[in-house]
Amino acid sequence: MNTFGHIFRLTTFGESHGPAMGGVIDGIPAGLVIDLREVAVQLARRRPGTGEGVSRRREEDRCEFLSGLMEVDADGRPAGSVSMSSAEVVTLGTPIGFIIRNIDQRSKDYDALRHVFRPSHADYAWQMKYGIRDWRGGGRSSGRETVCRVVAGAVARQILSRKYGILISARLSDFGTAGCNGENLGMAIEDAVKSGDSIGGIVECRVAGLPVGLGEPVFGKLQQMLASAMMSIGGIKGFEYGAGFGAARLRGTSAADCMHIDSDGNPAFSTNYSGGIQGGISNGEEVVMRVAFKPTPTVSAPLHTIDDAGREVVLEARGRHDPCIAVRAVPVVESMAAITLLDAVLMNMVARFDRPD
Amino acid sequence: MNTFGHIFRLTTFGESHGPAMGGVIDGIPAGLVIDLREVAVQLARRRPGTGEGVSRRREEDRCEFLSGLMEVDADGRPAGSVSMSSAEVVTLGTPIGFIIRNIDQRSKDYDALRHVFRPSHADYAWQMKYGIRDWRGGGRSSGRETVCRVVAGAVARQILSRKYGILISARLSDFGTAGCNGENLGMAIEDAVKSGDSIGGIVECRVAGLPVGLGEPVFGKLQQMLASAMMSIGGIKGFEYGAGFGAARLRGTSAADCMHIDSDGNPAFSTNYSGGIQGGISNGEEVVMRVAFKPTPTVSAPLHTIDDAGREVVLEARGRHDPCIAVRAVPVVESMAAITLLDAVLMNMVARFDRPD
Amino acid sequence: MNTFGHIFRLTTFGESHGPAMGGVIDGIPAGLVIDLREVAVQLARRRPGTGEGVSRRREEDRCEFLSGLMEVDADGRPAGSVSMSSAEVVTLGTPIGFIIRNIDQRSKDYDALRHVFRPSHADYAWQMKYGIRDWRGGGRSSGRETVCRVVAGAVARQILSRKYGILISARLSDFGTAGCNGENLGMAIEDAVKSGDSIGGIVECRVAGLPVGLGEPVFGKLQQMLASAMMSIGGIKGFEYGAGFGAARLRGTSAADCMHIDSDGNPAFSTNYSGGIQGGISNGEEVVMRVAFKPTPTVSAPLHTIDDAGREVVLEARGRHDPCIAVRAVPVVESMAAITLLDAVLMNMVARFDRPD
Amino acid sequence: MNTFGHIFRLTTFGESHGPAMGGVIDGIPAGLVIDLREVAVQLARRRPGTGEGVSRRREEDRCEFLSGLMEVDADGRPAGSVSMSSAEVVTLGTPIGFIIRNIDQRSKDYDALRHVFRPSHADYAWQMKYGIRDWRGGGRSSGRETVCRVVAGAVARQILSRKYGILISARLSDFGTAGCNGENLGMAIEDAVKSGDSIGGIVECRVAGLPVGLGEPVFGKLQQMLASAMMSIGGIKGFEYGAGFGAARLRGTSAADCMHIDSDGNPAFSTNYSGGIQGGISNGEEVVMRVAFKPTPTVSAPLHTIDDAGREVVLEARGRHDPCIAVRAVPVVESMAAITLLDAVLMNMVARFDRPD
Repeated sequence: MNTFGHIFRLTTFGESHGPAMGGVIDGIPAGLVIDLREVAVQLARRRPGTGEGVSRRREEDRCEFLSGLMEVDADGRPAGSVSMSSAEVVTLGTPIGFIIRNIDQRSKDYDALRHVFRPSHADYAWQMKYGIRDWRGGGRSSGRETVCRVVAGAVARQILSRKYGILISARLSDFGTAGCNGENLGMAIEDAVKSGDSIGGIVECRVAGLPVGLGEPVFGKLQQMLASAMMSIGGIKGFEYGAGFGAARLRGTSAADCMHIDSDGNPAFSTNYSGGIQGGISNGEEVVMRVAFKPTPTVSAPLHTIDDAGREVVLEARGRHDPCIAVRAVPVVESMAAITLLDAVLMNMVARFDRPD
Repeated sequence: MNTFGHIFRLTTFGESHGPAMGGVIDGIPAGLVIDLREVAVQLARRRPGTGEGVSRRREEDRCEFLSGLMEVDADGRPAGSVSMSSAEVVTLGTPIGFIIRNIDQRSKDYDALRHVFRPSHADYAWQMKYGIRDWRGGGRSSGRETVCRVVAGAVARQILSRKYGILISARLSDFGTAGCNGENLGMAIEDAVKSGDSIGGIVECRVAGLPVGLGEPVFGKLQQMLASAMMSIGGIKGFEYGAGFGAARLRGTSAADCMHIDSDGNPAFSTNYSGGIQGGISNGEEVVMRVAFKPTPTVSAPLHTIDDAGREVVLEARGRHDPCIAVRAVPVVESMAAITLLDAVLMNMVARFDRPD
Repeated sequence: MNTFGHIFRLTTFGESHGPAMGGVIDGIPAGLVIDLREVAVQLARRRPGTGEGVSRRREEDRCEFLSGLMEVDADGRPAGSVSMSSAEVVTLGTPIGFIIRNIDQRSKDYDALRHVFRPSHADYAWQMKYGIRDWRGGGRSSGRETVCRVVAGAVARQILSRKYGILISARLSDFGTAGCNGENLGMAIEDAVKSGDSIGGIVECRVAGLPVGLGEPVFGKLQQMLASAMMSIGGIKGFEYGAGFGAARLRGTSAADCMHIDSDGNPAFSTNYSGGIQGGISNGEEVVMRVAFKPTPTVSAPLHTIDDAGREVVLEARGRHDPCIAVRAVPVVESMAAITLLDAVLMNMVARFDRPD
Repeated sequence: MNTFGHIFRLTTFGESHGPAMGGVIDGIPAGLVIDLREVAVQLARRRPGTGEGVSRRREEDRCEFLSGLMEVDADGRPAGSVSMSSAEVVTLGTPIGFIIRNIDQRSKDYDALRHVFRPSHADYAWQMKYGIRDWRGGGRSSGRETVCRVVAGAVARQILSRKYGILISARLSDFGTAGCNGENLGMAIEDAVKSGDSIGGIVECRVAGLPVGLGEPVFGKLQQMLASAMMSIGGIKGFEYGAGFGAARLRGTSAADCMHIDSDGNPAFSTNYSGGIQGGISNGEEVVMRVAFKPTPTVSAPLHTIDDAGREVVLEARGRHDPCIAVRAVPVVESMAAITLLDAVLMNMVARFDRPD
């Protein structure tokens, strides 16, 4: 259960304070050009300390690619192994293995948490499930696990963009008690930090340029694949697309996406309550979805909890943490969207043999 | 992509106006007693015409079990094949095949829709994807497909209940513009029907008695499995659990599920913002989730759309339809929860070898 | 574990003396024409009593298709549901559900075997694994289970043949102590029957017309997929392809399939020790494989065994049985080859985006 | 298609002359003690230059474990990250990521092969399938890929041995034209090397101590899982178990594994023609299987072939190669058996709820 996807598949591994995070991207077609600098760009977006409202912990996220890719010569033919300085490379059709070393770990910071179950973390449930856990920074449950998703997403989005013109962009659309904009974002976070607290947020993700036909009618509905992708991200409490929860308050006549023939003679939709997906299949309109992040569970304010010896304790977290996980999660949401949609594109290639040109 | 689950797996087939719906339940352990009358009870809950606010179309949903089960004698030993009148039977550990014949189909009712793309239905996207479709009542995209989920759910919930004391119950919690209760439900639906319209609704599902430890930390998070299950149901536009979308507006100190030792000396949670799941793993608290259904897209009021020859047409649906799909969807939601949770229970059996007793 | 395949997938169910056998064919592309009479033809080849050396038990193997297919009108457009008398039909891209009723079961014949573990059958291992079993005719372990494979194979082979010109044919190539031909086949079987015994045999399967490129380099090697397919057939004790076990006795220079440019200017192989597969990938040559069937384990001669109460007993089988399972298995071998190869064809469609025309 | 297994799953990546080989072991239960020195021991068995009849190329196969494991303290509790010098460690229940750097690659040796399709290698079929390939040493198709299987196998076999007393051992049982023993092995290889040639061989693998009940009755038969595992190893042309191909020449009365009650009062088999598997399920007897390796396709003697420009060329391989791949393959065969059997053990844990003790 550390693999996501059907044809385009990502398998990840790694504990936050172990030697490395890493993954294997399987099912990627051969002969595609990938710009590895784009991977670095996306990793930088996720990195702490590079934006407002993010923790100051310094993570070096240098991704080393170990397989599945080769340098190309001027004619686009494979010319040798990739290295840390490779730019444009080509896929071999074989699995892409990669690792990101964990450095600056400060595992000692977590000694005090070795026997404590932090409230609203995985700690207690994990211990009961496995009987053993890596207590340092959440181990496998750490948000650090998402770094591998960003690597795979950075690969997938390039293919979607170059081959199909599919563009994915997410943003923090709402948080705290007010609408989110450049000014009050910083203030709200600053306010939460001052009181040793944290805030939640909503991330909206839009996908433009999707062809009609992605997704399967029953157990592979596109919204199902996307919901599964998003809900696999730690801290997300809800997913909706199109009219979302608001649809429950609409009438059928109001929520109908009526069709017409546009001025170019093509089928067109008058509205997009469907969020670009009908009957589980993309209809060519923009896909719009929103996910809700809870506030970072680690706060400096004292919280009541218990330890693994069954004693009640009061916890005052001292480690580094983000006051709003939704901020850094934006590229993670985009990455999971990209991974899912490329998978859907590949799955759709076998839906019928003879396509109209 | 017509299979759901990892160990406990449901594969379904069937178009709404074809000969039959059916499915295969695989991965069910041997030696479990199942009461087939419970299947009939659950099918009756989903059947149209049996409650307020549901269509009057008469579907005979008699499930015929074809394999995987045997009648038992007084000593609980297998005694012969199951029949339509079997009550308590026992699982063989082999796949349970079943069918439900489609009768009272009135396929002729759909002749007028053969070339028309109904707004907010799968029709247009389906035609573009496959180049061919069964136009009669939605074919594979019909809500009728959920009948197979109810069969599998009725099997799964018995096992969860008898073996683990896990209880699942859903209800229509909210719809239209007001809170939902016995009185205004009927009125709101009646009101919608009068104007040839339909309404949406929110279904809340609660699961009590779950053990700690179900779900996997990364790509098999329990909320991910449940979201995938729910979002595979047609007409659902959103999923949330625990504090859900409201969590985005909370602060970390408010949303923390603090722990203490209760009067019996056991670990306990003071609140349940987590909705019974932390880090993707059940923590023993009640699992609470909500899904939002859009209003039935088929309405009697005229809607603008196009046909498969690229002409604009006005559609006034005449067929039978539910004014509120959320009403009949309640047992479907429960069924998908049951299927998912039994799968999670089985998956958890291999998480560690040595369990404390 | 009742599903075979990756994209083109067959799920089966059914006990030999339960109400019906059946299956679900998933992953079949839309818009393909299938002749259902071909299914009947293949089922007839497998049916007992229709050839030399097969049991006289009468099985009515009428396959009822329940979904995924529609009748077509003169223009090839879907026109209505399939029936038992349908001939040419078209695929909808949805799962094809089908059942074959079990009739003429004579379950009473098996009462004596209810508590006995037949030698070299699944009985003992099954009872120990599941703690419960359908003792009638082997239940799920019966050779009757292969009827569903023949249905799916009859569908798959049509697509392979029409779309790609791929032809699959198997034959009993060797058995008993002598080479197999029309004359001595009957004699050897007659001889075995006279002494209440049975014989084994080797089935060779050849596939012509395969394109280059099917199969995956590591864990989806074409020979691996084919071996898995064949070894899932009951009674098969060995699989080999190309030079097979004989390759172990060759030298590298003798076993090298040297290449040259043929008179048409195309790449060509001088020999085919590779059996049409190199590095797990089809190379365009004929695929040649052989499987070894053990003799039917049910014989009339007395055999020592035990019952489920731990008593030693002597078993003299009275039921109907084939003196040589390899005879009826020929269409089963072909069917599993067809299912596997169509899956490989579909998998190969996503190996690269840009194909040379 | 770079993942093997159902619950215990191995995903591998790596080209022979890329930066590293590696893999992810998923589905391993938590709390198991693993001795990493055993991994080194198994890798040494596979390493070239350490036995008779193996190539003198020097591969440094140092496996670095990156996740899923922790050092333990004296009380067996997790104490810190693993390192290259770790001995006994404990599983966390999370995926075990590992890499083995490729060193001493001499990629230049392969420049001459960049455009040539070596006879009986993957080269031609690969190029046609993917349109691009890593020509250096076979790339992903290299036998070097098996190093990852040996790592996973070394982990799996420890669990099988410690928890269940299951022991796996393989040996080169036959090769060339004569039976294989300590004396003539070396001679035959020396003889082949002198003439610039190579030889094939048969490896027999035996598994003792298996419990009754592993394997599934239809599409997960134990022999099917084992055949799939073995046939995924490069160079294997055939698989058989128990009486194998010889069974085709037996009569039913000769091949029956009769049962009796032994002197301890336990069920026992008089013979083992079934090779420890009946109806796809282990019966508690020794599992015996044999695989046939073709001779190493790379030989020094000149061979006719073509290049990727469609020209005929004569190839005289100069690189290092094993004169008999079956020799080094012995631990690979054992490893694939271990991986498969641990998977079967875990799958069997969910076959029934209530086991007799």
